[in-house]
Amino acid sequence: MTAAENSVSITDVTLRDGLQIQPVVVNRDTKLAVLEGLSAAGVRSFEIGSFVSLRAVPQMADTAALFEVMPRHPDTTYAALVPNLRGAERAVLAGVRQVRLVLSASEGHSQSNTRRSVADGLHAAGAVVDYLRGRGVAVSVAVATAFVCPFDGVTPIERVEEIVDALLSAGVTDVVLADTIGRADPAHVARLTDTMLSTFPEVTFGLHLHNTYGMGLAGVITGLEHGITRFDAALGGIGGCPFAPGAAGNVATEDVVHMLEAMGQSTGIDVGALAEPAGILHAAIRAPLDSSVARALAWVD
Amino acid sequence: MTAAENSVSITDVTLRDGLQIQPVVVNRDTKLAVLEGLSAAGVRSFEIGSFVSLRAVPQMADTAALFEVMPRHPDTTYAALVPNLRGAERAVLAGVRQVRLVLSASEGHSQSNTRRSVADGLHAAGAVVDYLRGRGVAVSVAVATAFVCPFDGVTPIERVEEIVDALLSAGVTDVVLADTIGRADPAHVARLTDTMLSTFPEVTFGLHLHNTYGMGLAGVITGLEHGITRFDAALGGIGGCPFAPGAAGNVATEDVVHMLEAMGQSTGIDVGALAEPAGILHAAIRAPLDSSVARALAWVD
Repeated sequence: MTAAENSVSITDVTLRDGLQIQPVVVNRDTKLAVLEGLSAAGVRSFEIGSFVSLRAVPQMADTAALFEVMPRHPDTTYAALVPNLRGAERAVLAGVRQVRLVLSASEGHSQSNTRRSVADGLHAAGAVVDYLRGRGVAVSVAVATAFVCPFDGVTPIERVEEIVDALLSAGVTDVVLADTIGRADPAHVARLTDTMLSTFPEVTFGLHLHNTYGMGLAGVITGLEHGITRFDAALGGIGGCPFAPGAAGNVATEDVVHMLEAMGQSTGIDVGALAEPAGILHAAIRAPLDSSVARALAWVD
Repeated sequence: MTAAENSVSITDVTLRDGLQIQPVVVNRDTKLAVLEGLSAAGVRSFEIGSFVSLRAVPQMADTAALFEVMPRHPDTTYAALVPNLRGAERAVLAGVRQVRLVLSASEGHSQSNTRRSVADGLHAAGAVVDYLRGRGVAVSVAVATAFVCPFDGVTPIERVEEIVDALLSAGVTDVVLADTIGRADPAHVARLTDTMLSTFPEVTFGLHLHNTYGMGLAGVITGLEHGITRFDAALGGIGGCPFAPGAAGNVATEDVVHMLEAMGQSTGIDVGALAEPAGILHAAIRAPLDSSVARALAWVD
């Protein structure tokens, strides 16, 4: 079965969002082993690094090297995150064919994360999209704090509409709505999803949810119910944003896959086969995995 | 606001399902302090003990004493679980006015939990209901393994229908569908809820979900979406069935309340005020609380 035949697509962000906040810097061989284990389990979409400041996020410093040496499986998407034009240039040099651009929907997070206003972020995004399109690189845009900002509170849905409208004008048709700090309640997920899908039928939307308050899988199920079929997740529920106080881990890849497969959706991923890369990850970060499936099935001590 | 004016009713089962599997036997004063803290936070429905074998479940040995000394708040339900007629007699002697009867929907769990067949369990339930009704005691029935049995696998929905039909014939109009081992995926919750609510409009249904695989809140949101407004939960996500291998904690009271209130439902419960009884519980059981809200808000070390 090819990735396109699955009813739901999971993008594993373990090696980017998952690792970027870890106090331990995980080495390249370990990243490659996790990537290989995830591929073997059936994952066909990855976010595996970012071209950001090496000083601010040393965990991502080997992203170009990863892209150089990693084996590429067929029908598989390997994306890197870039915050700006300079990052995009580095990504192109490293041979990245899929870029995820990130911008914030709220002023507080935009300033904290990238030291620019939302408007400046949008302007920069337009330039990056033009640059990448000219080089045949696919672009998706993650809208951070699309639900709640740790500084500004609830993000008005109208604000997200304005941003997606501007992105669409710039030619972006692939948008990930990110709940950066895990505060998206299911009703909020339903409202934003309904508005986005009805207002922008040309755009494909994904959801990026964190599990800070335990609402992650409730958000996934709500998004799915309302028409979203692409979800980000990280092995062992690791992750968080270094520039968003209160952020906790992503929804766990194994928890999302387990739930979706249990309810008859097809992800193309064998949840049992995720135990191996989870074990490698656990040994590397020397921290507990925050995943119900890992605990229930006693994957690690 | 009275309990009846809330859109969703939470039954806190900390002192029964929550404590029954704890290796540490929590003393009566601690139970009373937890109960008082939960009441102060706004909880108006409790399951606070069971009249089962003292030898098999020593954690519940002081249930009669608890009912004797506990303060009773207005508009509040204090239920005890009973497995059979002998337990019902003990409950009546202890002055219990609300009884929750438990029976299994699957043969494997019925034999393991109560050493009787499902049919014998139903027969016994009829006798208990008659006995309690004659004494003016309100009865609800929890149907264990209504979704999945640790021994027999998935419980057919027709089996649950037969059981509820028999209970209704015996005069029971208050039924709790229990996912004893946390394996109810949201689609299963939706199917069972839809069938139950359409087949038995005379019956009020509640959901009792465990979070073993992280699907607890996804189940709550699905149940709510499909018409259920009563949910069991336990502080700190503690709990489990001693006779069901693989069972893990209940959905956490604070996680359920946080999510429902965040999405605009009213539970009558102040989630912040749950920190105090959670702290008392944590100190008493000497184990981590398995609750996202407790972790996110750093309620305990």
